This record gives sequence, structure tokens and C-alpha cells, in this order.
Amino acid sequence: MISPLLTDLYQLTMAYGYWKLGMHEQKAVFHQIFRKHPFGGNYAVLAGLSSVVEFLQGWRFGPTEIAYLQTVKSPAGDNLFPQDFLDYLSTVRFSCDIDAIPEGTIVFPHEPLLRVSGPLLQAQLIESTLLELINFQTLIATKAARVCQAAIGDRVLEFGMRRAQGPDGALSASRAAYIGGCAATSNVLAGQRFDIPVSGTQAHSWVTAFPTEQQAFDAFAEVMPHNFVLLVDTYDTQRGVENAIRTAKRMREKGVELRAIRLDSGDLCALSIAARQQLDDAGFPNVAIIASNSLDEYVITELKQRGAKISVWGVGTNLATAYDYPALDGVYKLSALWNDTNNKWDYKLKLSDSPEKISNPGVLQVRRFFKNGVPTEDLIYDLPLGLTESISRFCIETPHTLRPVNAFDDFKDLLQPLFRDGKKIADTETIHVIRERAIQSVNQFVKAYDKKQYPVGLENHLHLYKHQLINEFSKKNDDTY
Amino acid sequence: MISPLLTDLYQLTMAYGYWKLGMHEQKAVFHQIFRKHPFGGNYAVLAGLSSVVEFLQGWRFGPTEIAYLQTVKSPAGDNLFPQDFLDYLSTVRFSCDIDAIPEGTIVFPHEPLLRVSGPLLQAQLIESTLLELINFQTLIATKAARVCQAAIGDRVLEFGMRRAQGPDGALSASRAAYIGGCAATSNVLAGQRFDIPVSGTQAHSWVTAFPTEQQAFDAFAEVMPHNFVLLVDTYDTQRGVENAIRTAKRMREKGVELRAIRLDSGDLCALSIAARQQLDDAGFPNVAIIASNSLDEYVITELKQRGAKISVWGVGTNLATAYDYPALDGVYKLSALWNDTNNKWDYKLKLSDSPEKISNPGVLQVRRFFKNGVPTEDLIYDLPLGLTESISRFCIETPHTLRPVNAFDDFKDLLQPLFRDGKKIADTETIHVIRERAIQSVNQFVKAYDKKQYPVGLENHLHLYKHQLINEFSKKNDDTY
Repeated sequence: MISPLLTDLYQLTMAYGYWKLGMHEQKAVFHQIFRKHPFGGNYAVLAGLSSVVEFLQGWRFGPTEIAYLQTVKSPAGDNLFPQDFLDYLSTVRFSCDIDAIPEGTIVFPHEPLLRVSGPLLQAQLIESTLLELINFQTLIATKAARVCQAAIGDRVLEFGMRRAQGPDGALSASRAAYIGGCAATSNVLAGQRFDIPVSGTQAHSWVTAFPTEQQAFDAFAEVMPHNFVLLVDTYDTQRGVENAIRTAKRMREKGVELRAIRLDSGDLCALSIAARQQLDDAGFPNVAIIASNSLDEYVITELKQRGAKISVWGVGTNLATAYDYPALDGVYKLSALWNDTNNKWDYKLKLSDSPEKISNPGVLQVRRFFKNGVPTEDLIYDLPLGLTESISRFCIETPHTLRPVNAFDDFKDLLQPLFRDGKKIADTETIHVIRERAIQSVNQFVKAYDKKQYPVGLENHLHLYKHQLINEFSKKNDDTY
Repeated sequence: MISPLLTDLYQLTMAYGYWKLGMHEQKAVFHQIFRKHPFGGNYAVLAGLSSVVEFLQGWRFGPTEIAYLQTVKSPAGDNLFPQDFLDYLSTVRFSCDIDAIPEGTIVFPHEPLLRVSGPLLQAQLIESTLLELINFQTLIATKAARVCQAAIGDRVLEFGMRRAQGPDGALSASRAAYIGGCAATSNVLAGQRFDIPVSGTQAHSWVTAFPTEQQAFDAFAEVMPHNFVLLVDTYDTQRGVENAIRTAKRMREKGVELRAIRLDSGDLCALSIAARQQLDDAGFPNVAIIASNSLDEYVITELKQRGAKISVWGVGTNLATAYDYPALDGVYKLSALWNDTNNKWDYKLKLSDSPEKISNPGVLQVRRFFKNGVPTEDLIYDLPLGLTESISRFCIETPHTLRPVNAFDDFKDLLQPLFRDGKKIADTETIHVIRERAIQSVNQFVKAYDKKQYPVGLENHLHLYKHQLINEFSKKNDDTY
């Protein structure tokens, strides 16, 4: 259960302001997007939505939360929140609508990953948590997909817990890594919590706890013959492999087969080739070679290119922390506010000197077009404005190109109803279904696009309206009193 | 409460093996160290121990954990753990001794941060969680200290939640950032949980929720006069400052003073200088300028060098994820095992081709020497071997230098008793005491050492014994049957 206090204080000060001004129930629309592909890649795998659902289903300010908020002081030293506001806050129950792209879908910069429509106060208060949950899990699912692509069908095991960022950093990473394609995790709690396969055998401390490596290997084989894998680099890898073979031969006489050895240091390419030879020569061609030690998609690709004889990859720190790109730049922006006087939406945007940082106004949807089952392009459009007849689009990545959507034989609107009036209405998917979607989408995408940019555009009506608004808002900035 | 299942599966398979072989109660000694300074710096600030204490005080395998472990399968498809082992596991209560360096202390590579002595099974099972908790919080406390050093006494606010790694990634980061010297966090849950000051006013969505920026500013000032800070870059920073000044003038008439403006985009140096001028000219010399937007110690240093007029720094993603170095390389190694037959410690080490990766054997302590109150060097020594009379040392960073410890007028053994027989015996320190220790130690250290390497060495007895062991273990690797 995630506390509703897992938010930035300014969400609460703004919520108070909206309430004080009577704006708290005004209907608002926010969208969550990210702006830049992580890892310099060309796709991301959406993850984290199940955590969002769990968070929102438990979202309410109970007595403990209110008691804490009563103690928060302003810089002037008095109470930041008056009691009447806290009384109101304690009565608020989540009543927003949420439409979201299903977990495990491939997504791209600027696309709304989810749309929250509902009372301004509520939609504002949940911002930070939604960002946090989706930014991180999407980041790790994407990293895992990249690592699994580099492993070209080999099993990838996620081992990152000990260097992950906080207990839940580890837990969320294990979940997202599995969605992105990993076969198992070492994290037992993730296994329990998320129904992910867990994997593990022994560490160097097992080997050093015995007088000799040979004794350590023999002992492990005896006590855990059904999980018979040996870590061979505690003292010297080549002799470790020899010791492993001796233990394997003794165990074969008892009908127990060595499953794998694990290399954890040194030149993994040379060591794996030598170990493969040693194992084959000794009559153990079916013993797998697992490698670990600072692996990521780049190292795995290089090892494969150099002919390493590794068939299982244990990936830790670089995966669980997304070491080379440790944060997705997701944002959550107000895009429309219902105007009761005019009975229509007021569209909103935030300006910026950088065009890609200007938010998109409206009540948005993403349409994905397909040809022969393969995605061909995505179009961001505004639901009230609708689609132009010719379905032309304005490409975001090359902002002055107006071009028709390519030929397609199918399309799908990606944002699907998840909550209505605060209640979850979508069916719950198992993590295995989400993972299958992710693996299939990534495989299909990488085959079609490799490193090419996937086209994502703003529908032309929306583009023109956005630019009209940019002009209006630039003027509105003047004092109007 | 952190589940005891937050561990790597191999800890449990090893635990089972130790139990099956009757080694589970053999007395073992493990030390936790890190090998390399994060961020290319020359110090680290230890943090995370309070979380370790909380974890260990609740550490036991209850019915839910046992029920899950009953379901875990081996690769062969049968149950990984037999029921008699799980029955035993459910009876285990933490009974180790722990000695640890107090949180907020400056620490260096290779120094034992904590020593766990106790039954092999228990000391093994807690490894992954201890690593996880201390690696991450130490990393962030160190990053925060670096950022605060760059800010040279200015207030630093931690704003990282939305892009942190998992809910607890955010929570642990807020705690550690405060220890490292930050003045407050935006994370409300961290405020509640850890007694950290919280800070926040309004986001761009507040400004866009109103027809004009001026209206948004006036509204915020009216509803929250005691927390009167304005974000001025939603549409255009220069005009944003003009609008802020207009609102500030109106409020001054009511006796309310604008506290600060916040810049969040663009050239923060130029904009802050211009804003300072605008504010001063308008009669608001005491309004502070807060800056945020991808700040870290390098950007802050550069902005200060360029003469930026910023006095409060909001640091988010780069701090909360330690963006440029997102994982500390901590390890936890078995270093001694009690030999009941010989009634003495068997010393243990893991070999490696890289000398700095060979673990240190023994039952270790760290002695810090001081001159005029300033640390002069640290000596890692083995308690059973004791110290040489002349207190000579073998320097780790320059491995062939034997040299005497410099003149000193005081020393302190850093590892202090924390747990005895599984019970916490040390007094609990408040986070504020820990933070004060960190801030004072860092200030003192940076003044004395700047970017210079601090000398850390192995005591000579220990060094000689270690090398004797390396030779023995290299031989022991042969098959001894």
C-alpha cells in the first residue's frame, strides 16, 4: 500500500489553493508523457500501470496522514494547512476517469501514456506518484528489453537487488525487468509479490566457507542436486572449471547431472570458450555457461560478436538501476479545464523556448496505424477536435513536415478506459500476459525499425489549434488588470 | 517493515545447504565494504544504518514467507526447499553481533562499514538487504554532500521524487539527502516518516489553471500568504518576474512580503541576474531567487562561478538517482569462520586477478587517527592479530609502501557495538544528530583534503597474514581428494 503522502508538498499546497478558491471540483484533464527515448534508443516499453491501479485503489487521506499534515509548518512558522481544509481532504474519495495505454505496449516520446480527467484537486494530488511509478518501471522494462534483444533469445536473469535504489527500487525493477523479457529474478520478495520465477544457487561465500573449492562443490551437489550449478571463479576460473568437472563426474555416477557453471570475473569471452572446451572434452556438452559481472546490452553484444560460449546472462546493477540512463524524463501536464460559464473546455499549455517542451493541449488520444500487423505510425489527436478527413499529420520530430498518414490496413486507439468515476473498470491482466505483449511488440518493432526513428505526429487540427494557443498565451502573459 | 524475503534466492539455497550440512550455527564473520569512491570523489558519507536496524528488528520468517518458500520450485520442477528446513527457518531468531560505523561518518574504500558476527546461516541471509540499504543511502548522502559543498552554504532542497527509482527509492533518497546536508525535501511521506522539513509552493499547472499568470500569482498570494513564493517561467521568465513584482506590490500593501521567486528553465545565470536587478529596482532586495532544472554539483559550481544570483537550489533527479553514478559497488564478504576442532578462527578470503578485489580476512576494526581534531589516516587492522607496536601500515592505494603512521594526537576505533546477540544495544540517534555529524565531518574533510586522496592502509600484521593466506588459498584450489 502506497501512502497518499508519497507526493510533492506543492501538490498539497496547490490542492489547498484550489479548494480555498472553490476550484477543487472543476473538471480538469492531465496527460502523462515522456519527452526523450531512454538509452539513446528508439522505443520504450510501458510499465508501472498495475502499481498505479494499486495506489489509486487505496488512495485516501486517513487519520494518520491528516495528523501529520496538521503538523506541517509554513516558512513563517504557522500551520501550513488550516483544519477546515484537512477536514475536507479526509472526505475526498478518488473519482477521476483514467484512460491508459496497456502495460507492455511500445510507446514513444510525446504520446500521452495516460489521461486523467476529473476534479482538479484530485488529478493534481496524484501527479507525483503516477510519474514516479511509471517513469521508473517504464525505464527498467525498456532496459530489460534492450538487454534481452542483445541476448538474442538466451535467458536473461535479473540479479540487481543489492545495488538497487531502495527496497522498492529493487522490487519495482524486478517486476519491470520481467515484463521487459527477463526470465527470472534473484529477488525472492519480487517472486512472492509478483509471481515472477526466482533463480539462485551459491555465492563466493559458500565456496570460501569450505576448506577447499572442491569440497564446497561436492557439498553443494549433495545438498541441492536438483539445482546443481557451480560458481567457478572464487580462486581461479580455469581450475574452478576443473574442480566443477570432477564434482560433476562424481555426481553423474549417482545419476545427477551438472546443469551449469557460472563465470563472474575476468575475460568472460576467453574464459567461456576455454570452459566450453573443458566441459565438452570431459563429456559435459549440455552443461550451460552462465555469465555475470557488470553486464549490459553493449557488453553482451560484444561478447556474442567475439564468439563467447555463454547461454545464460545474469544482469544486475546496470539493469536494476538503468545505470547509463537512470531516470526517464516523464512529465504530467494540465491540458484542459472545463469552463462552466461557457460550457466548454479551456485548453491549456505550458510554453517553453524549446518547442519539444511545449505541452500539448486538449483531451488527447493516440491512434496507431498498422500495415500487415506492423505499426507504421502514431498520430496524437484531440478527441473534441476530432480527426481531419484526410488524416494528415504534423510530424513532431521534424516539426515543419505536413504529410499524409501512410497507407494502412488497420488502426487502434491506444488509450483504453481504466478507471471511471474512481472505480477500476478494466480487467486485471496477469504479469505474464503483459510480458508476452512486451516481448512480441519489441521483437516485431525491432525487426521492422532496427535503429530507425518511428514516426509520431500531431494530427493537423490539433497542431493548428496548438499554435493558435501558443500565440494567445504569449499575449496573455501580460498584466490584464 | 522490510520482508526477510527481500534477499537473493542464493542466500536461501546456501542457508539450506549450511543447515543440511550442520554448518548453520558455525560462527562466521562478514564485513561490508565498498571498493571505489562514487562520483570520482575522495570521500563517502555513510548512511542507511537506521534502516538496517529497523530491518533486523523485524527479521523473521513468518507463516506468509514460509508459505511462499514452500511453492518455490527447482529447475528440475520439484520443491526447492524441504519442509524440515522451512520448519527450522521459521524458528530462527536474529542472534548476531553487529559492529558498525555510525551514520553520517566519512568513510573510504576497503574500510569495513559494518561487521556481522554470528551463526553462518543468519549472517548469510541478511547480506543482500544490508548491501541494498547501505549502498543506496550512502550513495545519496554522498551526492547530497557534494551538492551542498558546491552550494557553499546556500540552502539545497531535494525535489527528486517523481523520477526516483520506485516509491522507496524516493523515500530512502530523501532521508539520505537530508543526512548529506539538504535543508528540506518536497517528499511529504519522507517528512512524515523521518521528521525531515518539507517544502513546496506551486507548479506550472497552478499557473496554467488560471486565465492569466497574473491572476494565478494573485490567487496564490491570497490563499497562501505565509508560503508566498512564485514560479515565474510558465510562459516567459522576464515577464513572469514583472508579474511577480506586481503581485508582490499589491500584497505589500496588505503587509505580506514575497519570500522568493523560482526559476525553472532557460539560462539560469542570466535570468537570475536580470531577475535580481528587476527585484532590487522594484524595492524587493530581500526576495530570494530559487533555481531548479537539472541541477547538480557541477552546474551549481558553474553558475556560482558565472555570478548567478541564486541563493536556494532545488535539486531533483540528479540527486535522488545519483544520476552520474547510480550505484555504489558495496560488497559483503566472509572473512572468518570459527573452527570448533582447533578452537580458533579460520581466516577466509576471495581471490581475484585485481588486487583491490581480494577481500581482507579476519575480524576487522578501523582506527582513525587525528591531529588537531582533523583525521590524518585510517588503519584497517585485525582484532585477534592486534596492532604492531610501531603502528606501521601498508597503504592500500599504493600497495608497496610500508610507512609509519604519521604523528597524531588522538585516535578512534570507528566500528562501534550496534547489536549483541541479536538485540540492538546502541542508543538511537535522531536524523538531525546524524546530519550534523555528516555536515561537520564533510566540511572539515573538504577543508583539509580538497581533492587529495585520504590515506587508508592495512596494518602490517594483517597485510603479511593476508599475503600468506593468498598463497595458501591459491594452492588449496587444487583437488585435495
